[in-house]
Amino acid sequence: MIKFKRYFPILDWGRRYDVATLGDDLTAAVIVTLMLIPQSLAYALLAGLPPEVGLYASIAPILLYAIFGNSSALAVGPVAVVSLLTASAIGQVVEPGTASYAAAALTLAFLSGILLLVMGVLRLGFLANFLSHPVIAGFITASGVLIAASQLKHVLGVPADGHTLFEIALSLVGHIRETHVLSLMIGASVIAFLFFVRSGLKPVLTALGVPARLASFITKAGPVFAVGATTAISWAYGLEARGVAIVGVVPQTLPPLTVPDWSPELIRTLFIPAALMSVIGFVESVSVAKTLAARRRQRINPDQELIGLGAANLGAAFTGGYPVTGGFARSVVNFDAGARTPAAGAFTAVGIGIAALCLTPLIYYLPKATLAGTIIVAVLSLVDFSILKATWRYATSDFIAVFATIVLTLSLGVEVGVASGVVLSILLHITKTSKPHIAEVGRVPGTEHFRNIHRHAVETSPTLLALRIDESLYFANANFLEDMVLNRLSQDGSQIRDVVLMFSAVNAVDYSALETLEALNTRLLESGVRLHLSEVKGPVMDKLAPTRFIEHLSGKVFLSQNDAWAALSVMPPERISPPSP
Amino acid sequence: MIKFKRYFPILDWGRRYDVATLGDDLTAAVIVTLMLIPQSLAYALLAGLPPEVGLYASIAPILLYAIFGNSSALAVGPVAVVSLLTASAIGQVVEPGTASYAAAALTLAFLSGILLLVMGVLRLGFLANFLSHPVIAGFITASGVLIAASQLKHVLGVPADGHTLFEIALSLVGHIRETHVLSLMIGASVIAFLFFVRSGLKPVLTALGVPARLASFITKAGPVFAVGATTAISWAYGLEARGVAIVGVVPQTLPPLTVPDWSPELIRTLFIPAALMSVIGFVESVSVAKTLAARRRQRINPDQELIGLGAANLGAAFTGGYPVTGGFARSVVNFDAGARTPAAGAFTAVGIGIAALCLTPLIYYLPKATLAGTIIVAVLSLVDFSILKATWRYATSDFIAVFATIVLTLSLGVEVGVASGVVLSILLHITKTSKPHIAEVGRVPGTEHFRNIHRHAVETSPTLLALRIDESLYFANANFLEDMVLNRLSQDGSQIRDVVLMFSAVNAVDYSALETLEALNTRLLESGVRLHLSEVKGPVMDKLAPTRFIEHLSGKVFLSQNDAWAALSVMPPERISPPSP
Repeated sequence: MIKFKRYFPILDWGRRYDVATLGDDLTAAVIVTLMLIPQSLAYALLAGLPPEVGLYASIAPILLYAIFGNSSALAVGPVAVVSLLTASAIGQVVEPGTASYAAAALTLAFLSGILLLVMGVLRLGFLANFLSHPVIAGFITASGVLIAASQLKHVLGVPADGHTLFEIALSLVGHIRETHVLSLMIGASVIAFLFFVRSGLKPVLTALGVPARLASFITKAGPVFAVGATTAISWAYGLEARGVAIVGVVPQTLPPLTVPDWSPELIRTLFIPAALMSVIGFVESVSVAKTLAARRRQRINPDQELIGLGAANLGAAFTGGYPVTGGFARSVVNFDAGARTPAAGAFTAVGIGIAALCLTPLIYYLPKATLAGTIIVAVLSLVDFSILKATWRYATSDFIAVFATIVLTLSLGVEVGVASGVVLSILLHITKTSKPHIAEVGRVPGTEHFRNIHRHAVETSPTLLALRIDESLYFANANFLEDMVLNRLSQDGSQIRDVVLMFSAVNAVDYSALETLEALNTRLLESGVRLHLSEVKGPVMDKLAPTRFIEHLSGKVFLSQNDAWAALSVMPPERISPPSP
Repeated sequence: MIKFKRYFPILDWGRRYDVATLGDDLTAAVIVTLMLIPQSLAYALLAGLPPEVGLYASIAPILLYAIFGNSSALAVGPVAVVSLLTASAIGQVVEPGTASYAAAALTLAFLSGILLLVMGVLRLGFLANFLSHPVIAGFITASGVLIAASQLKHVLGVPADGHTLFEIALSLVGHIRETHVLSLMIGASVIAFLFFVRSGLKPVLTALGVPARLASFITKAGPVFAVGATTAISWAYGLEARGVAIVGVVPQTLPPLTVPDWSPELIRTLFIPAALMSVIGFVESVSVAKTLAARRRQRINPDQELIGLGAANLGAAFTGGYPVTGGFARSVVNFDAGARTPAAGAFTAVGIGIAALCLTPLIYYLPKATLAGTIIVAVLSLVDFSILKATWRYATSDFIAVFATIVLTLSLGVEVGVASGVVLSILLHITKTSKPHIAEVGRVPGTEHFRNIHRHAVETSPTLLALRIDESLYFANANFLEDMVLNRLSQDGSQIRDVVLMFSAVNAVDYSALETLEALNTRLLESGVRLHLSEVKGPVMDKLAPTRFIEHLSGKVFLSQNDAWAALSVMPPERISPPSP
C-alpha cells in the first residue's frame, strides 16, 4: 500500500477533498479552459498539426496528470517550446500535413512518455540538473524568437518555411510581395489588441471601477475574445472566399483512440529529439511547479513529476494528441485563480472535452492569422535578452554558454542549439575546475591555524612546502596539482625536503587522481623529497587506506596540519612572510 | 628572441651540445633504428598502407620533432594505437590499397598536425586532462586486443576484415578452413621466438656471461633478427611461389614530397577522427615524456609538446607518411640506451633514411606473417585488464567508465569506444558532484570550532540551522542544496528562524547557483525564515557582492561561523547532540 501510494498522489489529496476545495478548483478550471482553447488550437498549428490535435492533447493528458502528478497548480497541455521542438523533430522526417506526420507526433509523445516514466521510476530526476540556468534561459529566448518568426507567414498570408531564423527570414523575404492584405489586417489587429489587453486594459478597467479580480479575469479572456470576434467577422464577410486562410473543418468528436507509428526507423530518428524534449519540458514544468508550491509551503517531488508528465504524454500518444508538458503562464493563472488540487486540471479537461464536442463547428471560420497573432503575443513574453547582460556582468563562462545557446539555436535550429548549450556548459565547468585553487600555507604565529602565505603574515619553514588544495581531486585537475608541485620544487628545490598536501577541502579522489598522486609520490621520492598528507576527511581516507599509494607513501598521513608542522618544520621558523599589499 | 626561443627548444639544448652527448645520442640512435625498421613496416601494414609509408613516417616527422619537441627521450614515429585509428578512420571512407587511401592518410596527418599546432599555440594542452586515466587504460587495452585480432589474418594467411572484435572474429571463422599452413608456421614461429626473446633470453644470456648491456641490446634486436631470418628463408625456399604473402616491391628512395587530398568532403569526414587521434596520441606521448623527464629531474612543457607533435604530423603529411606520435616502448629503449637530447631522434631519422635507400630491395621477400607476428607480440604488452580489478576495488564510477570503454571499443570500434568513454567519465563526474556533501554543524563546546552534528558532540540552537557546504556550487548541484534546505525546514520547520550557509569550502558560485540561492532566499523569506552566509572566501564574495542576491538577502553575511553563532543562537544552547555510534 505504501509503495502504491508513492505512484498515486491522488490517493493522498483525494481523501481530504471537500466542497470548499471543489468550488476553488471549479473556478480555476473555467478560467484555464477559456485560456486553453485558443492556445491549444494555436500551438497545434505551430507544431504543424491540425488544430483539433491541440484540443485532444488537452483532455486525456490533463486527466492522467491529475492522477499521477503532484503539483496542485501545474496546468499541463500543449506549450510553445515543445510544439516548436515537435515541428523541428518531425519536420525533418515527414512531410507536414500528411497522415504520417500526425502519426509521427504520436510516436514522439509515446517516446517522450516512456522516457519520462522510466526516469521517474529510476528516480533520475536529478539528470535535469545538467541543464544550467543560462542555457535554459538562452534556449527559451531564442525559441521565442524562432516561434514568433515562424508565425509571421500566417499573419502575412504567405507560404514560408524553415527551421532556423535565417531560413525563415529568407523564405519570408522571398514571398513578401505576395502579402495578403486582409490576413495582415486581421493578424496585426489581433496582435495590437492583445498587447493592449496585456499592458493597457487592466488599469483602464480598474479606473472604471471594475473589481480587480474581474479585471484580471477579463484580461485573461483577451485571446478568447479575439478568436470570437475575428471568427464572426470572417463568417459575416465571407473572408474565406477573399483568400484568408481559415481553420476549416474540425471533427466534432471526443479524442479518438490512436496507435503511434512503431516503425523502428522512425523510433530511431525521433529518440534523441524525444529525450531533449522530455528533459526541457520537465525542467520547465518542475521549475514552475516548485515556484508555485513554495508559495503554499508545499514540496514538489521531481521524480513523481516525471511520472505525472510521462503518463500525460502516453495519454497524448493514444488519444490523437502530441507531446505536452506544464505551461508557465497557464499554471500561474491556474494558481492565481485558486486551483487547490490536481482536480482543477481534471475539470479543465472536461471543459476542453465539451469544447471539442460542441464548439468545433464554430471554429470553422477562425482565421489562421488570429491564431498566429495569439502565439506571437504569447511567446514574446518568453523572449528576455537580459540574461545576456546579467551573465556578462557575473561570469564569462556563463555568458559564453548563454550566448552560444542563443546564437546556435537561432542559426542551426532548436535541437543543435540546446544540445550544444548543454555540452558547452559542462565543458566550461570542467575547464574551470581543471585548475583548482591551491594555496601555499604557513602557520599564523602562536596559533594552530594555517593560512595562505600570500594573504597573511605566517611562519614557514624552508624545507617544508605545505599546500592546501581547495577542490576535490579528479581526472581533469589531478595533472594540474602534479605540475604545480613539481614546478614549485624546481624553483627552489634545493631546500625543500617535505611536501604536505592539506586535504581539508578534498571531498573525493577519483582513480585518475589516485594514480597521479602515486606518480607524484614516486617522482618526489626520486628527487629525495617526501610526500605527506594532512587533514584527510574520513570518507576519503577510507577509500585511500587500502591503496598502493598509501602503502608506498614516502611520508606520513597527519591528522592535522599542526601535527605535520610540529613534526616537519625546522625550528626556529626562518622567516615570516609578509602579507601581500 | 625570447618569444622565438619558446617555439624552438633546439636553441636551448643545441648551445650546450658536446662530443660526450653526441656519443650517447649516437648509441641510442643505432639501437632505436634497429627497433624502428620492423616496427615502422609493420604498423604501416596495420594502418592499411604500403610498408614504405612506415619508413617515410619515421624520417621527416622525427627530424621536425627534434627541432620543435622538448623531450630528450621521446621517440616519435608510427605507433600501434594511432595506426589502428588511422585504419578505422580511413577504412570507412576509402577502399584500402588504393592511391586515394594513401592520400587520405596524408590528409589525416595534416589535420592532426594542424590541430596539435593550434592547440599548442593557444596553450590548450589542458584539454587532454578531459581523458580520465581509466578511460585511456581501457581504450589502450581494448585497442591492443583489436590490433592483435586484426593481425591474425596475416598469420593464418586468409582474407579477413572488420573494425570490431565481432566482425573480425566472424570473418576469421568464415575463412578458417582456408588457413595457409606455411604462413601460419612462419607467423607462429616468429611469435614464439619473440615471446622467448622478451621473457626468456636475457636470463640465458646473463647466465652465459654476456654483459648486461649487451644482453639487453640483443633482446631489443629480436624483431630485426626475426625479419632477417624469415626474409632469408622466404628467399631461399621461394615461399612466394608457395603462396606465402610477402611485402613485395618497396621503392628504393628517400621520402617523396606529397600533397594531402584537400577535398572538403574528406576533411569534414576525417576531422573528428583526426581530433580524437591527436588527443590520444598527445596524452600517450606526454605521459611517457613526463615519466622519462622526471627520472632526470627535467620538466616537460605540454604545450611545447603539442607543437612538436604537430610539426611531426605536418612533416608526415608532406613526405608520404601518415599520423605519428611518441611511442611508449621505443621511447623507453631510447632513454635506457642513453639518449640525451632530441638529436638522438635526428640520428635515428638518418638511420631510417639509409634503410629506405639501401635496405628496401632486401625487404622484397619479407613475409607479411612475420610483420604480423611482431605486431601481435608488441601490442599484447599493451593489454592489461588489471585496470578493471583496480577500479572495481577503488570506485564504482571509475569501474563503469573503464568497463564501458573496453566493451564499446571492442564491440563498436575504436572511435565510438573512446568517445563514449570520455563522455561517460565526464557525466559520471558531474553526477557525483551533483549531490555535494552538506553537513549540519554545531559548535564544539567552549571553542570557536563548528563540526558535523552527526559525528561530534556539539551545541546547537533550536532556531538556527547551520549547514556547511563541502563543494563549489554550480548548475548541477545548486538544486540539491535548495531541496535539502527546504526538506530540512519541512521536518521541524516550526522552530527554525535562521538558516546559515557556511561557505568555507565553496570556491565558486556559478550563475545557475546564484539564481538558485536567490530563489532559496525568496522562498525562505515567504516562510518567515532568514538566510545568512558565513565564511565566504574573498574571491567568491567579490563576485556575489554586486548581485541582487546579496542586495535582497534577508539575513547577513558573517565573517566567521562563530560570529553567526554569537548573533543568532538562542542561549543557553538547548541540547548537546550525541555523536553517532
